[in-house]
Amino acid sequence: MTTDTAVATVHPAWLPDAALAPLRALPSAVLLSGPCAAAARADLGPDVPVADADLVVAAAGGAGGVADLGVDGGLDIPAGGHVLVRTPDRTVVLGADDASALRGLYALARETAVAALTGSTPAPGVTTHAPEQPLRMLDHWDNVAVHPVMGQVERGYSGGSIFYADGEVRTDLTRVAAYARLLAATGVEAVAINNVNVHAREARLLTDGLPDVARIADVLRGYGIRTFLSVSFASPRLLGGLPTADPADPDVAAWWAAAVDRVYAAVPDFGGFVVKADSEGQPGPFAYGRSHADGANLLAGALRPHGGTVLWRAFVYDHRQDWRDRRTDRARAAHDHFAPLDGEFAENVVLQVKHGPMDFQVREPVSPVLAAMPRTRVAVEVQITQEYTGQQRHLCYLAPSWSSVLRFPLDGTRPVASLVARGGVVGVSSVGDDPFWTGHPLAQANLYAFGRLAWDSTLSPADVLDEWIALTFAGAPSAALARVRAALHTMMDGSWARYEGYTAPLGVGFMVTPGTHGGPSVDGYEYSPWGTYHFADRDGIGVDRTVATGTGYAGQYPEPWASVYEDVATCPDELLLFFHHVPYGHVLASGTTVVQHIYDSRADAVAALDGVEAAWESLADLVGTVVPADLDTRVRERLAEQRRSAVEWRDQVRTYFWRKSGVVDASGREVF
Amino acid sequence: MTTDTAVATVHPAWLPDAALAPLRALPSAVLLSGPCAAAARADLGPDVPVADADLVVAAAGGAGGVADLGVDGGLDIPAGGHVLVRTPDRTVVLGADDASALRGLYALARETAVAALTGSTPAPGVTTHAPEQPLRMLDHWDNVAVHPVMGQVERGYSGGSIFYADGEVRTDLTRVAAYARLLAATGVEAVAINNVNVHAREARLLTDGLPDVARIADVLRGYGIRTFLSVSFASPRLLGGLPTADPADPDVAAWWAAAVDRVYAAVPDFGGFVVKADSEGQPGPFAYGRSHADGANLLAGALRPHGGTVLWRAFVYDHRQDWRDRRTDRARAAHDHFAPLDGEFAENVVLQVKHGPMDFQVREPVSPVLAAMPRTRVAVEVQITQEYTGQQRHLCYLAPSWSSVLRFPLDGTRPVASLVARGGVVGVSSVGDDPFWTGHPLAQANLYAFGRLAWDSTLSPADVLDEWIALTFAGAPSAALARVRAALHTMMDGSWARYEGYTAPLGVGFMVTPGTHGGPSVDGYEYSPWGTYHFADRDGIGVDRTVATGTGYAGQYPEPWASVYEDVATCPDELLLFFHHVPYGHVLASGTTVVQHIYDSRADAVAALDGVEAAWESLADLVGTVVPADLDTRVRERLAEQRRSAVEWRDQVRTYFWRKSGVVDASGREVF
Repeated sequence: MTTDTAVATVHPAWLPDAALAPLRALPSAVLLSGPCAAAARADLGPDVPVADADLVVAAAGGAGGVADLGVDGGLDIPAGGHVLVRTPDRTVVLGADDASALRGLYALARETAVAALTGSTPAPGVTTHAPEQPLRMLDHWDNVAVHPVMGQVERGYSGGSIFYADGEVRTDLTRVAAYARLLAATGVEAVAINNVNVHAREARLLTDGLPDVARIADVLRGYGIRTFLSVSFASPRLLGGLPTADPADPDVAAWWAAAVDRVYAAVPDFGGFVVKADSEGQPGPFAYGRSHADGANLLAGALRPHGGTVLWRAFVYDHRQDWRDRRTDRARAAHDHFAPLDGEFAENVVLQVKHGPMDFQVREPVSPVLAAMPRTRVAVEVQITQEYTGQQRHLCYLAPSWSSVLRFPLDGTRPVASLVARGGVVGVSSVGDDPFWTGHPLAQANLYAFGRLAWDSTLSPADVLDEWIALTFAGAPSAALARVRAALHTMMDGSWARYEGYTAPLGVGFMVTPGTHGGPSVDGYEYSPWGTYHFADRDGIGVDRTVATGTGYAGQYPEPWASVYEDVATCPDELLLFFHHVPYGHVLASGTTVVQHIYDSRADAVAALDGVEAAWESLADLVGTVVPADLDTRVRERLAEQRRSAVEWRDQVRTYFWRKSGVVDASGREVF
Repeated sequence: MTTDTAVATVHPAWLPDAALAPLRALPSAVLLSGPCAAAARADLGPDVPVADADLVVAAAGGAGGVADLGVDGGLDIPAGGHVLVRTPDRTVVLGADDASALRGLYALARETAVAALTGSTPAPGVTTHAPEQPLRMLDHWDNVAVHPVMGQVERGYSGGSIFYADGEVRTDLTRVAAYARLLAATGVEAVAINNVNVHAREARLLTDGLPDVARIADVLRGYGIRTFLSVSFASPRLLGGLPTADPADPDVAAWWAAAVDRVYAAVPDFGGFVVKADSEGQPGPFAYGRSHADGANLLAGALRPHGGTVLWRAFVYDHRQDWRDRRTDRARAAHDHFAPLDGEFAENVVLQVKHGPMDFQVREPVSPVLAAMPRTRVAVEVQITQEYTGQQRHLCYLAPSWSSVLRFPLDGTRPVASLVARGGVVGVSSVGDDPFWTGHPLAQANLYAFGRLAWDSTLSPADVLDEWIALTFAGAPSAALARVRAALHTMMDGSWARYEGYTAPLGVGFMVTPGTHGGPSVDGYEYSPWGTYHFADRDGIGVDRTVATGTGYAGQYPEPWASVYEDVATCPDELLLFFHHVPYGHVLASGTTVVQHIYDSRADAVAALDGVEAAWESLADLVGTVVPADLDTRVRERLAEQRRSAVEWRDQVRTYFWRKSGVVDASGREVF
C-alpha cells in the first residue's frame, strides 16, 4: 500500500505487491500440480530448478522432488495444514495438499511481513500449522437479481456483488479471483455464493444456472476455495414442477438426487448446500409436518454419494410474535427447535448456529445450542458484514467479539472453538464491488481476522491486527510502519467496546432503526412482531429470562452458566439486561447504577472518538506515500459519519432514558 | 350498484347506469356545441326535437333554441354555475357554459337520486347553483416512472396510476375518461396530472411529453376538466440546457416563455403549473438568492399571456431539523416564509397552503397563513388520499374534517372558504387503477365529498354522504336503500372521530411508522430531522407553541385565536397538545385527565368498531343484489385490517403512556 491508487482501481487489501515481494525476490520452485499451482506461480514468478531454489512450495505426496530436499520423510503434515521448514539453505512450504500449500505460501508471506513489522527474524526450524476448524466458510448474502427491498447484497454495505450484476452472473470474474486469493491468505476454504434468502432468480442457480456456478467454482478452485450454494427447500416445486417438497415423498428425494448429480457433473468438488428453512418466510419441512432433521437429511442423502455437506441454519424463530406476550422468547427458539433433534441428523449435516441467540447484536450471550447437541455437527456463524455493528460506516474491529465467543467455555470446560470443531466456523461476508472491498477500508481487517480466528481461535485480536497491518502496509519504511501500527491499534483495538458503549446498553440490543438496522431508534423494535424487546418503562428495563420468574432461557445453559445468568448478582454487567429486568437504580458490579451507566457510557464512548480521529490525523504526513490518498479520503469520510451517528446514538439513548426515568445524570452532561 | 360486478371490471362509483336511468328515460335534447356535448349526449341518449323534449341541457349564449323555451331571458347564470328550471312541461339545465351545463346535468341526476333516497319530490321552479370556489382542483401525486421508494403513485393506496404505466403515459385513456366523468359530477374542474415531487422522467412532460399531455387534456376537456402540470423549477437547467434557473436571468424567463408557448400550442385551454419549490429537496429560487415571489412570478409571467395560473405550494420548511432544538418549529415555517411576501405575488399566482401547519395529520389547527395574506390569492389544500388517516385500509370519512376547516372563522369572522375564494380548493387525489378507484370502496365517498364541499362548503357532511349513497346505490329498492343508508351513516359519520380516537391524541400528531406513515410508532418521528415531535417524558407531553414560553406559533393567528390557543385554559381539548406541553394529570375541559383521556379514547374508539362491523354485517342479505359481492368482499377485508391495525394503535399508545407515566388506567383495562 505504498502507491497512491486512484479509487477506480481495486485496493490490494492485505496482499499488495510489496507483501509478496520478499518471497518473489527469492529463486523459487513451485512443485504443485493441482489447481492452485498457477496461483502460487503467479505470486512467485518463474520456477528455478529445485536445487537452485531458496523457496520451495510443495504438497505432500504431490509432485516429485520434495523427498530430495530431505524435509518430507519424518514430517507429520496435518490435514488441511502445512509445515514450514526453514533451513540455512532454503525455506520449504509443504502443504497437506495443493490448496494447503498455497495457504502455506501466504502464511510465509504473512510471517515475513510480521517480522518486518516487529523487527524480529523467523528462527530456523520446522513449524507445523493445522487448522482448528476443518470448515472455514464465508456466506455471501448476494442476490443475482436486485431485490426491491434488500438490494443486490442483503445487508451489504460495500456496493454491489462481485459475483452478480444486471441480474446475471458477471461475465468478468477477475474480481472474484482477486477475492479468492485474499481469502486463501486468511485460511478461508469455502464460500457460499448466494443469499440464504433464496428468491426466484437465485433458486435457479441450482438448475439452469449451473454453467455459471461452474465458472465461479473454477475461479475459486484456483485458490483452494470450495463452492457452496444456498438453495430453496421448495426447489422440487419451484424448479422441478413437483406438487410437493415433502421430504418423505420419494419423488422429492429422487428430484434432489438428480439435481445434485447434475451439480457434481458441473462442479466435481462442489461443497454442498446452505439452507435457511422455515425461517423468516423461507419454505421448509414444517409445511409437510416434518422436522428439521427430516428436511436436512433429505438433502444430505442426495449429497452423500458425492461427499457434499448440508449446512442447515438454526436461525428458526417466530417472526410474527406479539409484543404483548412476554412468555414467548425468541432467544429460546433455536434451542427449543433443535436440541430435541440431537442425534437425528445425518453425518454430512452441519447445523449452522448464530453465535448468539438473537441476531448478531453487538453484545449477546453465546448461544446455548452450541453445547446442547453433542451428537450433531455444529458450526458457529458470525457476521462480518456489520449489519448491527455500524454498517462499515463505524469503525468496529470485531475480532475481540469473535474471539470472546470462540474462547468461551460454554460447557464449563471446553471453548466454543472446540465444541464446533466437527462443524466449523461460518462468517457472513462483508465484501462487495467497492474499490476497498468492504466500504470502510479498515473493515478489511474484520474479513482478514475472521479467516485467521477460524483457523486458530487462540490468536489474540491484537496480534491478528498486527498481521493485517504488516501485510496491508508491507514495504513501508519501518518508522512509518511503526506509526501506522500504533495509530491503528489506538483506533481499532477498543472499537468494538466503544461501539457497544454508545449504542444499546448492557446486552439489551435492538435499539436500531427498523428495516435498515442503521442508526438509533430506542423503541424501533419495541412494539414489533420480531421478538426484540427491552421492556423499558419509567421504573426499569430489561428482559427477565430467568427460570425463576422469566422466560426460562437461562435454563438452556449448562452449568455454571445457567446459575451465573440466573442470578442478578452474578450475571455479568454486559449481559445484565439480556437476562434481567432491573430498576434504573440497580447497582452494577462496576459500582454505578444502570441508568448512570447508560448516561456515562454513551458520553464516554463518543468522547473517545477524539482519540480515534487524532490517531488517524497523526498519519496525515504519510498520505500519498504509505497511506494512499483515496484511502485516506474514504477513512475520513467514514470517521466523520461515525462521529455524526455516534452523537445521534448518544443523545437519543441518553434523552430517551432521561425522559423515561426522570433520573438526573449525575455528570451534569446535556440531555434534551 | 344493483348488479354483481366481477372485480376485474371497474366499479361505476357514484355514476352507475341506474343513477342516470331516470334522466335517460326522458325525451331529451342536448343543445351544446362545445367539448362536453358528447358526454352529455352519451349519458342521455339521442336527441329529440327541443319542442318534444322533457329534458333540455343547454349553455347560456350557446346553441340556439333555448330562448324559445322561455327560461333564458331573465335568468342570471353565475359564472361556472348553472340554473335548473323545473316546469310542469320539462326540466331545463342551463349552464353558464358548456362544462357548467354538463355539471348541471349530473347535479340533476344527483337531485333525482336524493329524492328517491329521501322520498321527496323536487319542487317546480328555478334554482341557481354557483360554485363557491372558482378553482376546484385535484392534484395527482402520480409518477410516470415508478419511483424506487414512492412507487407509481406517491402516497397512493389504490394501485397504479390511471394516467401512467410502464414508464409512459397510457395508450388507453378509457379509465381517465371515466374518472373525468365522475369528477364532473362532483364539481371538480381542474386536475394536475403529475406528482409535485417532479423527478427526471416527469419533468419532461413539459417538453417532449407534450403530445401525451395533450392526449390526456383532450379526454379531460370532454368533461369540463382543465389540465395542469407539476413542473420542476429547475426545468431551464434540466430540460433547457441553461446554466441556471435563476428567475432574474433573462434567458431563464425566455426559456419559460417559449416552453409555455409550446404547451398552449398543444393544449389551448391548459390550466397552468403546480410548483413545489425549495421544499423537501425540490429545487427553487433560494439557490439563486431569490424569494418565492420571484420564483412564482417568473412562471406567472410566462403563463399570463395565455391566461394560465401558477399554483405555488407553501409547504416549505426545514426538513433537516435537529430534534434537540426546541426553538425551531416546523409549524411556523409557512407563515414565516410567506406572510412577509404578501402583495408581491403576481395576480395569476395562487399560493397553495395545506389546511394545517404540519402535514395532513388527523387533527391540526387551521393554517394561519390562510388569513395572513389578504393581497395574495390563496388556496387551501386537503388530502383525499389517506396518507395519515388510514391509507384507505381504515374507514375514515373525511368530510367532517374538511367541513370544519372550510367553515372555520379564521380571521374572527369569515370562514376559510371565503378567505380562499380568490384562490380555490385543492385536494390530493386518492385514485388509482384499483377496480374500486380508491382501494377501500367506501373511500369513494371522500373523493365525492371533496368536490361537493369545494363547490359548497356549507353542505353538511351527512347530507353529502346521503348524496353519495343515493347515487352509488341508485336503483335499489327503497326498503333496501333505506337500510344501506342507515348502515353507512352508522359506519361513516363518526369514522374520522374514531380514527382520531385510537391514533395520536389531542392534536399532537405524527405517531406513525416512519417512511410509510402507516400504523403506530409513538416515538417513530420523535428523534427525527422532520420537525415532528411530541416531547413526551415521564411527567407530561405536548409542544409548547405559546408566545409566552414556547415557539410563538400561537401568535401567528389573528384574534381571537391567538389568545384562545395561547391560554391552556381556553385551548380546545382536541388541540391541547399541539399548543401546550402539559402534565399527564392536566384536567381537560372534558373533565378527565390527559393520560386518562389517552387511555379511554384509544379503547373506546376501538370498541366502537363493533358497531361499524355490525352495521355492514346487517347488509349481508343484500350482497349479490344491492351490494355487489366483490365490493362486500373488499369492504370486509378492509374492516378486518382496520380492526387489526386499530387494536395495534390502541395497545401501543396505551402501553407507551402507561410505561412512561406510570399512571394506572382508572378503567382497569389491560396494558402491557
